[in-house]
Amino acid sequence: MRRMIVLTDGYNDAHTAKTAICVIRYKPEEVVAVLDRESAGKTCTQVMGVGGEIPVVGSLAEAPGANTLLVGIAPPGGKIPEHWRPIVLEAIDRKMTVVSGLHDLLKDNAEFVRAAAEHGVQLVDLRDSDENDVANRRGIREDCLRIHTVADDCSCGKMVVSVELAEGLKRTGVDAAFVATGQTGIMVAGSGCAVDRVIADFVSGAAEKLVLANQHHEVIVVEGQGSLFHPRYSGVTLSLLHGVMPDGLILCYEMGRKAIFGMEDIPLEPPRKVIDFYEYAANIMHPCRVISVAVNGQKFSEREVAAECERVSNELGLPTCDVIRHGPEKLVAAVLRLGKELHKGGIRGLEKAPG
Amino acid sequence: MRRMIVLTDGYNDAHTAKTAICVIRYKPEEVVAVLDRESAGKTCTQVMGVGGEIPVVGSLAEAPGANTLLVGIAPPGGKIPEHWRPIVLEAIDRKMTVVSGLHDLLKDNAEFVRAAAEHGVQLVDLRDSDENDVANRRGIREDCLRIHTVADDCSCGKMVVSVELAEGLKRTGVDAAFVATGQTGIMVAGSGCAVDRVIADFVSGAAEKLVLANQHHEVIVVEGQGSLFHPRYSGVTLSLLHGVMPDGLILCYEMGRKAIFGMEDIPLEPPRKVIDFYEYAANIMHPCRVISVAVNGQKFSEREVAAECERVSNELGLPTCDVIRHGPEKLVAAVLRLGKELHKGGIRGLEKAPG
Repeated sequence: MRRMIVLTDGYNDAHTAKTAICVIRYKPEEVVAVLDRESAGKTCTQVMGVGGEIPVVGSLAEAPGANTLLVGIAPPGGKIPEHWRPIVLEAIDRKMTVVSGLHDLLKDNAEFVRAAAEHGVQLVDLRDSDENDVANRRGIREDCLRIHTVADDCSCGKMVVSVELAEGLKRTGVDAAFVATGQTGIMVAGSGCAVDRVIADFVSGAAEKLVLANQHHEVIVVEGQGSLFHPRYSGVTLSLLHGVMPDGLILCYEMGRKAIFGMEDIPLEPPRKVIDFYEYAANIMHPCRVISVAVNGQKFSEREVAAECERVSNELGLPTCDVIRHGPEKLVAAVLRLGKELHKGGIRGLEKAPG
Repeated sequence: MRRMIVLTDGYNDAHTAKTAICVIRYKPEEVVAVLDRESAGKTCTQVMGVGGEIPVVGSLAEAPGANTLLVGIAPPGGKIPEHWRPIVLEAIDRKMTVVSGLHDLLKDNAEFVRAAAEHGVQLVDLRDSDENDVANRRGIREDCLRIHTVADDCSCGKMVVSVELAEGLKRTGVDAAFVATGQTGIMVAGSGCAVDRVIADFVSGAAEKLVLANQHHEVIVVEGQGSLFHPRYSGVTLSLLHGVMPDGLILCYEMGRKAIFGMEDIPLEPPRKVIDFYEYAANIMHPCRVISVAVNGQKFSEREVAAECERVSNELGLPTCDVIRHGPEKLVAAVLRLGKELHKGGIRGLEKAPG
């Protein structure tokens, strides 16, 4: 059983600490403590809005029951902060497994590797990949309904929407699966591939393999990455879109955000334009449309989020909700309607579903 | 001085042997012989249509003056053919430098590495990369006119068009540069980055670096890779398009091709649709349009190619030519017009240019 200390030290904002926050949200039973020296003494909920009474501590020594250190941030470029080195080395010294989702692999750090070998400790790089196959378009089971989350930007909640939608589908009796494509999703799902770390030529091949490995389910919800509108990551997004060949897309966005995250002089595009381009790009490979919108309203009040959802729903003619505030039922219904229309996966679930 | 034997053994068709053919076309003074056992005794021109009297030989022993073995093919997935192993090992034994552009890196092959160390021989992987920076959109010199070649498919002549266009611009007095983004282009240009081998998150960053490194020229012609319409490589193409932020695009295609190369059940899209999607995708990041069309008419007669160019030019309203048959002058003129319109690079060249 994994008993984790989640390291966010100095980076506990919602974006940079998204790995930490999602692991705490979906795997709280595995989290013993959060290590963040500035906020030591508080609870996890006080600092990050999730995790209940899980304590925030100032040192590894304060959580002696932990057997794993999770590097819980995802900064642009994915480099490990220099001032974390001694903490990682102390964890290794304490014989803790170290798990990281950074581009900067633990296994490429000679100091960590040497220490881990000395103490018989395992270093786990969630983002490491040896994918080296191109997509082949062979063996795709067309009865499996493929749903994919996309967005106007990175770090706006695609993974959370994907997990909540898959869970919601399961609750209505559908054999659905969440398919992880990033380091955080892999922590939650227990499998997957961090596609942004794969050699560019093999990303759509890696996406296709994830489909092949999961298409025995009626519905798969494949986590999106980046955005077709992101100057840094648009190619990752397109490789994934073309490798997954989704039947339906869920458009995700964060309410109130005006510019590309981390590139404040690049404004976000209006949702209509975002939808048009995704549909255009997806349909090059496979018939597909945006079936629903998921709003991330974390910075706004209940009332403001409800108003936004109604406005967007009217403007775009698509069911719209905030999965954290409202649950995923509107998205679930949109997926079931698409499944029925296409005579695909989810039909059995639809028969079982109430109403 | 490099004196190469180009290895194509068993793979001398125009697509798979494109590295060989382009190196022979643009660096004939460095090529001593082609090694292809089936065609031994013929000339290079007889087998591949370029290279004049360069001999095709059946063994390394027949070209004792060579000091370098170039692996001259680029198969899908980039793996080295098993039956080439003994040839590579013999080259190492002969103390020849081995140069390869395959995904399958020479340096990852323990047998090659051991033999190279033993004989003091250098292994050069053109595709190897340690790029690990994201794009930043800083320091772009807007006076440099950025031209980029794009296509409906891979392996249809984007590199040749890019080289010919840059050379044509130089002949009219423009300070232009060809910027290589693939292994063959790197052999021709002597520098560049094989972007398809870069970790997906860093491809647009690598493209941006190529722009920053070359933007002291008035015009840069950045070689395109893959195609937005290619199930395997579309993400590489989009990363490059968004990293380069071109002002103008040259659409390349191979006359007579009906389907994606190597995926015969996926038909190619009509040029109008191809142009629309490239312009849509490029304009997300930077104002850009397709300014000209380059036809690869290698499988057709002079007359057929001329008719195709006229038909396409009328249909699309764009200057159209086959750079190998007709020279690049129409493309050069289109670039100079764009430079004048945008008050960018090439203006000086335009003043110098005749007519």
